[in-house]
Amino acid sequence: MPDSIITLTTDFGEDSPYVAAIKGVILSINPSARILDLGHQIPPQDTRHAAFFLASAIPYFPPGVIHVVVVDPGVGTERSLLYVEVNGHRLLVPDNGCWSILVRGNSPRVLKLAEPRYWRQPVSATFHGRDILAPVAAHLSLGLDAQALGPEVSQWARLELPAPRREGNCIHGEVLFVDHFGNLITNIRGSDLSTAAQPFRIKVGEADVSLRVRSYAEAERGAVVALVSSADLLEVAVNQGNAAQRLKATVRTPVVVIQDA
Amino acid sequence: MPDSIITLTTDFGEDSPYVAAIKGVILSINPSARILDLGHQIPPQDTRHAAFFLASAIPYFPPGVIHVVVVDPGVGTERSLLYVEVNGHRLLVPDNGCWSILVRGNSPRVLKLAEPRYWRQPVSATFHGRDILAPVAAHLSLGLDAQALGPEVSQWARLELPAPRREGNCIHGEVLFVDHFGNLITNIRGSDLSTAAQPFRIKVGEADVSLRVRSYAEAERGAVVALVSSADLLEVAVNQGNAAQRLKATVRTPVVVIQDA
Amino acid sequence: MPDSIITLTTDFGEDSPYVAAIKGVILSINPSARILDLGHQIPPQDTRHAAFFLASAIPYFPPGVIHVVVVDPGVGTERSLLYVEVNGHRLLVPDNGCWSILVRGNSPRVLKLAEPRYWRQPVSATFHGRDILAPVAAHLSLGLDAQALGPEVSQWARLELPAPRREGNCIHGEVLFVDHFGNLITNIRGSDLSTAAQPFRIKVGEADVSLRVRSYAEAERGAVVALVSSADLLEVAVNQGNAAQRLKATVRTPVVVIQDA
Repeated sequence: MPDSIITLTTDFGEDSPYVAAIKGVILSINPSARILDLGHQIPPQDTRHAAFFLASAIPYFPPGVIHVVVVDPGVGTERSLLYVEVNGHRLLVPDNGCWSILVRGNSPRVLKLAEPRYWRQPVSATFHGRDILAPVAAHLSLGLDAQALGPEVSQWARLELPAPRREGNCIHGEVLFVDHFGNLITNIRGSDLSTAAQPFRIKVGEADVSLRVRSYAEAERGAVVALVSSADLLEVAVNQGNAAQRLKATVRTPVVVIQDA
Repeated sequence: MPDSIITLTTDFGEDSPYVAAIKGVILSINPSARILDLGHQIPPQDTRHAAFFLASAIPYFPPGVIHVVVVDPGVGTERSLLYVEVNGHRLLVPDNGCWSILVRGNSPRVLKLAEPRYWRQPVSATFHGRDILAPVAAHLSLGLDAQALGPEVSQWARLELPAPRREGNCIHGEVLFVDHFGNLITNIRGSDLSTAAQPFRIKVGEADVSLRVRSYAEAERGAVVALVSSADLLEVAVNQGNAAQRLKATVRTPVVVIQDA
Repeated sequence: MPDSIITLTTDFGEDSPYVAAIKGVILSINPSARILDLGHQIPPQDTRHAAFFLASAIPYFPPGVIHVVVVDPGVGTERSLLYVEVNGHRLLVPDNGCWSILVRGNSPRVLKLAEPRYWRQPVSATFHGRDILAPVAAHLSLGLDAQALGPEVSQWARLELPAPRREGNCIHGEVLFVDHFGNLITNIRGSDLSTAAQPFRIKVGEADVSLRVRSYAEAERGAVVALVSSADLLEVAVNQGNAAQRLKATVRTPVVVIQDA
């Protein structure tokens, strides 16, 4: 059953006829496919943002679901298109690394899409999501063996999110992602922090954050707080407010945790 | 059949991996669940807006559909999560009153979610939509008897939209909702107005509205008009224009109807 | 199977309870209907934009799918609502021409919706999408013969996108559509251009574009390029940038192709 579910993640925007065309192509090949939108507002060509988005979403899906990802700054170049199986998840993606942080230790199976018989003809120079990824997803959802798509490959682009670095009693990280609420999700893992018993201070850009809570609402409305997010990442938030605006922070703003001895 | 339909209404934004994670959790438990987006642009933590949204949408659905609502300023506090049956509709909601105007006279059945066996473990402190509401919805869609979710309760938060008040020949109300077109939907019911035969004037903030029509297009393009909306509420609109911008009005702007004797 | 798929295209916005109400009405009549969002961000009442959107999306769908289009500046006037079969596609649309460029030579079958037994009662004056188009779509998805909806008609509104005109060695066209990336899609067909061997220059408003590529990524990052889009239209883009902002262009900005002798 999950084999017939196809999810879509793109940078096309909600207003785009391109997403609609992809849906049409899929249903033309498999009218029973169950199409699910994951998100169409990845910032244009931002593979790093796509990587964070996929890492935050794909692990929650059951195996068998087919995830189509169209964030593709290299369309029209020689970059490959890939079929990937990683930790039971199946993705169809441009070879730009946006999926590589899903690996987490296990070996993925990666095929290069090379069989035009499963593509829409003629293949345009600018819209491989519609002409290659969508029809391949539809064929897979009908039960096509992935083996048929092309040769297995052992090289692919890797995109790692920046890792924090420790220096004395400090951890230097940065903002990875600003969510819709203005919460700042950093690249510092909750498990890297000292235990709650040990005090620490946080600097986000030039601003100090000293209040540590388990959830936003523990603090009073409007307070700036630090907490460990539902994805085990250090997060800086304003209870019922917008931390990005308040602290003038955005993606890549430095975040320093100073742990007292 | 409608038992397998799960709708989602959140304040997470269209760009959010959080909505995607909720979809993944639901499909992990019930791969046959049919997920339907209602809206993800409730303004952050705005339970009043959520209440208007739900009152405008839920009554049109058939009974049996499961509606998950994640607008949850109290996540992490002692507020409960509820299963509600109201007028045949089934909702999973934080106990913040966003559903209570759906009651309209009938007694709802309300259970407090208290059985962690139907939750995702571990439950995070900040994302009960993913960890509690989504898995409970999925289990219900598989046929779980709601009885199993927790004890019935008789107290819950109530959130009433502001009621208009009558004073002499005036009705004092306010703007409840500004739609995507800039139409101002007020809290004054069409049935509270004098009949069309009797003239009345309307003030929206400092602006006067004197033209009353049955539909936008009865007036000429650009005219400011008052009409009774498809939900029986007094609405102020500009034919093919934006009334909120034109009249500098927004949610809570006072609206006064002056009925001539 | 495609008969139970109903797509929705509206100008209601993503934040709208109106779209949710339409979904509820459809499922109330056919709980098995498979609802697919195509787009809800058609600019308000912009039938020309809707026409371009539909022409870019509908042809990719399999026959049998039912497409509901609610972009309806004339709601409440005497404009008709139509059932249309065109090139195998089935649409339910206000009679405002938004679908007419789908015809491309073949004769469409057009019925005027005239049988209130398939409508939601009472029909509001301002929301025919919910009260007429949605329930009619649901009945069709259950297998209702379109014949039953009303009389066949031979007159309907036509909306043609502006055609380019040739003058000496120039083609004068305009920007039809600006996509989410800021790419400028013009009304000049790729097949009207001289072959790649013959040089030409392009003016977009006051700006010159001289670099012609097959796909965005052939040029260096930030370069302004012209290419033939995946829909065979001349397109002006900035590789990994925003051409609309860079060239200060928008819908209706003149575009001139000067073909050298």
